[in-house]
Amino acid sequence: MKTTRKTKRGAAATKQLRTLLGPRKVLLEGDRKFMASFDSSKLSFEYDALIVARSEKDVGETLRLANRHKIPVTTRGTGTSLTGSASPVQGGWVLDMSRMKRIAIRKEKSMAVVQPGAVVSAIQEAADAEGLFYPPDPSSLKYCTIGGNIACNAGGMRCAKYGVTRDFVVALEGFLPTGEKVSWGGEYKKFATGYNIRDLWIGSEGTLGVVTKAVLKLVPKPESTWTSVAAFDTERKALMAVKALLKEGFAPSILEYLDEDSVYCAEEIAGVRLFKSVGGKPLLLIEFDGSRAELRAVRSRLRSWTDKYTLAFKSARTEAAADNLWEVRRKCSGAMFAMGNAKLNEDIVVPLESQLEFAREIKRLRKRWRLPMPTFGHAADGNFHVNIMFHREDKAERERAENAVRDLMETVVRLGGTISGEHGIGLAKSPFLPIARNKAEIGAMKAIKQGLDPNGILNPGKLFEPFQVWEHTPVTVHLPWDKKPILKR
Amino acid sequence: MKTTRKTKRGAAATKQLRTLLGPRKVLLEGDRKFMASFDSSKLSFEYDALIVARSEKDVGETLRLANRHKIPVTTRGTGTSLTGSASPVQGGWVLDMSRMKRIAIRKEKSMAVVQPGAVVSAIQEAADAEGLFYPPDPSSLKYCTIGGNIACNAGGMRCAKYGVTRDFVVALEGFLPTGEKVSWGGEYKKFATGYNIRDLWIGSEGTLGVVTKAVLKLVPKPESTWTSVAAFDTERKALMAVKALLKEGFAPSILEYLDEDSVYCAEEIAGVRLFKSVGGKPLLLIEFDGSRAELRAVRSRLRSWTDKYTLAFKSARTEAAADNLWEVRRKCSGAMFAMGNAKLNEDIVVPLESQLEFAREIKRLRKRWRLPMPTFGHAADGNFHVNIMFHREDKAERERAENAVRDLMETVVRLGGTISGEHGIGLAKSPFLPIARNKAEIGAMKAIKQGLDPNGILNPGKLFEPFQVWEHTPVTVHLPWDKKPILKR
Repeated sequence: MKTTRKTKRGAAATKQLRTLLGPRKVLLEGDRKFMASFDSSKLSFEYDALIVARSEKDVGETLRLANRHKIPVTTRGTGTSLTGSASPVQGGWVLDMSRMKRIAIRKEKSMAVVQPGAVVSAIQEAADAEGLFYPPDPSSLKYCTIGGNIACNAGGMRCAKYGVTRDFVVALEGFLPTGEKVSWGGEYKKFATGYNIRDLWIGSEGTLGVVTKAVLKLVPKPESTWTSVAAFDTERKALMAVKALLKEGFAPSILEYLDEDSVYCAEEIAGVRLFKSVGGKPLLLIEFDGSRAELRAVRSRLRSWTDKYTLAFKSARTEAAADNLWEVRRKCSGAMFAMGNAKLNEDIVVPLESQLEFAREIKRLRKRWRLPMPTFGHAADGNFHVNIMFHREDKAERERAENAVRDLMETVVRLGGTISGEHGIGLAKSPFLPIARNKAEIGAMKAIKQGLDPNGILNPGKLFEPFQVWEHTPVTVHLPWDKKPILKR
Repeated sequence: MKTTRKTKRGAAATKQLRTLLGPRKVLLEGDRKFMASFDSSKLSFEYDALIVARSEKDVGETLRLANRHKIPVTTRGTGTSLTGSASPVQGGWVLDMSRMKRIAIRKEKSMAVVQPGAVVSAIQEAADAEGLFYPPDPSSLKYCTIGGNIACNAGGMRCAKYGVTRDFVVALEGFLPTGEKVSWGGEYKKFATGYNIRDLWIGSEGTLGVVTKAVLKLVPKPESTWTSVAAFDTERKALMAVKALLKEGFAPSILEYLDEDSVYCAEEIAGVRLFKSVGGKPLLLIEFDGSRAELRAVRSRLRSWTDKYTLAFKSARTEAAADNLWEVRRKCSGAMFAMGNAKLNEDIVVPLESQLEFAREIKRLRKRWRLPMPTFGHAADGNFHVNIMFHREDKAERERAENAVRDLMETVVRLGGTISGEHGIGLAKSPFLPIARNKAEIGAMKAIKQGLDPNGILNPGKLFEPFQVWEHTPVTVHLPWDKKPILKR
């Protein structure tokens, strides 16, 4: 990589760090080091050393040395990021936090105190054991770490009701890029003691600090959930139904929209069939949670809505039946690869009032760029995943896909929305940040970066430096959370 | 003031601004200008001009000129801040946003789009008219503006269940100190597009930007509320009851604690009597909200808790009866002035597990400094108001009060808490910030300030420069929200 900073000074610093932390924690070669050279974007870069942190002290020492010698440091958990935010684009050191994964539940305060390497589903299980609930549910929750979730302000399906990762972070502890120890908040719920750097760190994609401890808010575990699926005559009707549902004050815990193409992928390709009578129609997957009494009330109130909008409707009485309804959502993502061997999953956001226009624009984009774009996602918060499918080896298709992405980004901003709801910017969306943000806004962000990280060591090259993803061939590795079928690769 | 920057350059810039905006918007003298020389701290400072903004353009022009000529700008709404955060300590210009007060409710999205001068109770009424609810409720809600609430991340009693102002801010629009227009978020619920400066602005006490528009989240209006009051044998027992209540998963919308001294103020001095049989005992004021069915369930579940902990308990069946229960909380604040003509209301925070120790520490503080310290506040989030009462003209008492504040601040930090939960730092708490925050943390805050406001024009002298409040005599003006009885002044 032309951007890799590899210097003699770097080699000496790496040697020094190895002496400081021991060779077991500072890896210079091997599979593990290679696997940390990319994230789920599969954009791989050469770098000097993988540091496997096991304590706060390791993190502090690493950062102090890196800052002194101006070595780039890219922090990572499992590496499920889709944008390259955990790929070490400028080389240097990769700081692996996945071994720091302790979880403690504070039942009486409804809080969890966790280390950054704790896997999200493990936190959920620990909370569940105490009758508590940690709602954020990115699709990679069985693999991704809370540190990464905080770095990217991860979302998920349940954000419809509960909000995103940010809404569950009570306090953070960690290190500034200089290696100085800081904490933002504590095990209490309120503070008004100077600038809120906690929320500045959240979503800053590892560029402003390294988290070593987080205090999370937990909520009471809902007594019960009720899952249903509705088919609609047209995409327009499905999105009108979303609007009506929210306007009537329903607060579904999940409200997932699948457009005709997504349903086609699941039904035709993956062979899932939800309604025998009505195939290929756009769907809403709806989940409510709460007390049994609340769910009873919802069920009865929902009837007039289903009567008015839906073509077909079914709900699950058992957990197994609910799981069956989810099958269509789970299967469509992998089945899309029948339409192209490469996918650009763009997690754009549009305001509620623009959803109908957005659906029309997706039709226009498909036609203009002659590419399949199955679209599904979190309708309650307008965070849709537009999946632009193409064949990587077909240069013309690749170019059309490249143009389609830019067109999409410009379109959602024109509709009053924005270019990312939960994946973040990383490398993949860096060329588009100026579409969503004006010069003064980006200038303010860069001024903050400069102020907190004067030597620019933390995750350099991300967000603000336009990266041309098309010039890079991803590595061909199958990751545990990959939805792309192995055989077709 | 020694800190006032009054220069020839300033006078020329003021003249230029007056030409630009017109004399009606740039006041150089008069009552209105005097009333904007202080906030509810009553620390008054000389300054050059009051700018009454009526449009975004006014704000942009003011800031661009101020930045060019390095004129201090202190933004204000109604000026209900208790910490001096809206007092123009370094002179210059005061930017009054109270005329920009439009409110629009977006019913279908459960959002409010408001200008910064909108009064909080007016927003609540507008939401209420559409069946929606804006929960944050600082005690000055009938006067204070949403701009000030955002600047200080205001809290209130209902934060127990709903959270603070921050939890209800969807997006902000406004100006950087340079006068450049920016927006952080939009009328959508999710974004992951670069640094989150929205939440950095919230709580930054007007030092990092000026808000001209805010998008707020609204929630469905609860069907019903149920208010009750419980008396306890001892403060210890009352605080144990708080812990038990929360541990059992109850989520009261309000949970206010009044210690023996606070109850004494209300009962003996103000003549409010809640329980005929048990006088002078510490109280919890408890409110639940939700559907009627939920409240019925709460009422029946609560019985075993009241049996176990309370000495006496009563609840209100009507709104008038509920209002009657609130009387004790409302009256105690004004009645405290019988114990001293000056009050230091310190809004400290302690974690749930330290509340018992905190109550013991308050006893120690009272004894050590020989001053009354009636303490009440938001027990569910550990945000207590310790009211240190003294006589301002008594030098020895004043000195003891001064020492008591520092002792209190050190105590709460030692207990794992922090020095402010909702008032902020401003001038009054600036000497104590280094107790709550380490050097690296304050350094990071200052680096951000320097990055975003290189000329240091926005609300200079606040948070980071220790201000000796004792060296200043407050002005003697009765403000509409003052709880201090007029006759006793």
